[in-house]
Amino acid sequence: MEKILIFGHKNPDTDSICSSLVMADLEKKVRGDDAIKACRLGEINEETKYALNYFKVEAPELIENVEEGQPVILVDHNEFNQSVNGIEKAKIDTVIDHHRIDNFKTTEPVFYYAQPVGCTSTLLFELYTLNNITIEPKIAGLMLSAIISDTLLLKSPTTTIKDEKTLEQLAQIANVDIETYGLDMLKAGTNLDKYTEEELINLDAKRLDKDGMSYIIAQVNTVSIPDVLKRKEKLEEVINQKIKSENLSLFVFAITDIVNSNSEAIVLGNRTDLVGKTYKINNNIAVMPGVVSRKKQILPLIEKNL
Amino acid sequence: MEKILIFGHKNPDTDSICSSLVMADLEKKVRGDDAIKACRLGEINEETKYALNYFKVEAPELIENVEEGQPVILVDHNEFNQSVNGIEKAKIDTVIDHHRIDNFKTTEPVFYYAQPVGCTSTLLFELYTLNNITIEPKIAGLMLSAIISDTLLLKSPTTTIKDEKTLEQLAQIANVDIETYGLDMLKAGTNLDKYTEEELINLDAKRLDKDGMSYIIAQVNTVSIPDVLKRKEKLEEVINQKIKSENLSLFVFAITDIVNSNSEAIVLGNRTDLVGKTYKINNNIAVMPGVVSRKKQILPLIEKNL
Repeated sequence: MEKILIFGHKNPDTDSICSSLVMADLEKKVRGDDAIKACRLGEINEETKYALNYFKVEAPELIENVEEGQPVILVDHNEFNQSVNGIEKAKIDTVIDHHRIDNFKTTEPVFYYAQPVGCTSTLLFELYTLNNITIEPKIAGLMLSAIISDTLLLKSPTTTIKDEKTLEQLAQIANVDIETYGLDMLKAGTNLDKYTEEELINLDAKRLDKDGMSYIIAQVNTVSIPDVLKRKEKLEEVINQKIKSENLSLFVFAITDIVNSNSEAIVLGNRTDLVGKTYKINNNIAVMPGVVSRKKQILPLIEKNL
Repeated sequence: MEKILIFGHKNPDTDSICSSLVMADLEKKVRGDDAIKACRLGEINEETKYALNYFKVEAPELIENVEEGQPVILVDHNEFNQSVNGIEKAKIDTVIDHHRIDNFKTTEPVFYYAQPVGCTSTLLFELYTLNNITIEPKIAGLMLSAIISDTLLLKSPTTTIKDEKTLEQLAQIANVDIETYGLDMLKAGTNLDKYTEEELINLDAKRLDKDGMSYIIAQVNTVSIPDVLKRKEKLEEVINQKIKSENLSLFVFAITDIVNSNSEAIVLGNRTDLVGKTYKINNNIAVMPGVVSRKKQILPLIEKNL
């Protein structure tokens, strides 16, 4: 039997990696076989590495394409341009997600479960309950890491009561202190020195295509925005190269201070007005007080200004 | 507070009407208020009337448009061309469905729950369980009517074990004999004499737009295919008018014998080859042995031949 491949989005974050591993665990137990494989569509970032290492779980296998007819399960995304190469011809079996749905299509009915919550793992927790399956401590650890990452320790405006309650229960199962573990994990992800500027702008970048226009919103977390902005000149250079090579109208590189919950963004392209209508842009930088969420704050702002 | 409107697809069948009423009942109990209203996007057919009458439930209110920003819940459909006029500008809150997903899009994350099962009500039954809400007998009656209708008394190839098990449990709650009630309800829906030919071809018609081509697959249930085909000449006339006025490439009017589980279809348009590659078409009629499901049998056939 052909293995069903489970993966999150390209440029995987902690939710995409952990939810793939968790969903694989769940599906193996529900479907009663080993015909399931967790995969990833890109490099593991430092934050995720910390989580996998802490809970002693191996990273899923890297894949780049799928064949026509390949059965797949998507977690933490649904937009084809954020998914594996070849997704249009794959056989989508299931989607578990917490993002908007954008031009999603299948030829057959599928299992699709999405809710406007802060993290995919919050929904996976529900599926364990629904299927009466006990959650192992290390699986709970992966889920709580995903929730902490996506909600920035419950501080992001995407956080719901359901995320909070789920996180509490998972912390008991995994036996970790949320604040201590969470801050350590988030800080591990802010070690940006080891990345080149090209890597930084691709680390957690989402590309969106709308009305014939393409734009990318990238985001990095840090404990010191000035530290990242020391590399501003070189960052702008690689962003401008990217804009040219991919014919982008806008590139927003958001640098988010996870301790103080603020962001500053480098904004480039010929449609900087989409940000500029709301935030003053000085020397290509927009200061965004209280902004931490791409999905709930930056993206809606751009769409409103479109 | 603005009422959230709940509705199924245009040309509503029993699942669309009953699931709207059931979902409204569920949402009122979950959200703890009366800010919910079940609606419908078209006339109630004879089969559905029988069910509503039997369980003494009033039909939902007819609506034709929604305003920009109107919060809505979609049941039993997701494709915008099958939904209310104005859906593109509405605020979609929730979708509960069992069809393929076709170019569905939202600007915000939504609650989306779909499974490849035979009927929307099978999923609603799960939601009652998940929310620990007791199902009243008349609500169980609506759900079982929807399942019997969509699965043709569990005979359609769309039927899953989950539909079967759900139907059994609902029959106990509603205290009805599935076979007796089911056949009576289905037969009530086969009283086609009261409809004009224009009404017949619109009674349960689904329009699909693909690759710049538009086609409609309509379906009626009967206990005697020859009885319906007595009106063949007039039916062909109104179908050809429809093809002309809506610039359709294909119109399939499937007449399904619910007792013997067969169909015959009137096939017209300039792309009858999409059916003709599989079934011989004689005098505009394709005989389709064992075919009862538009979704699982007729639609995939057309797409395969495209």
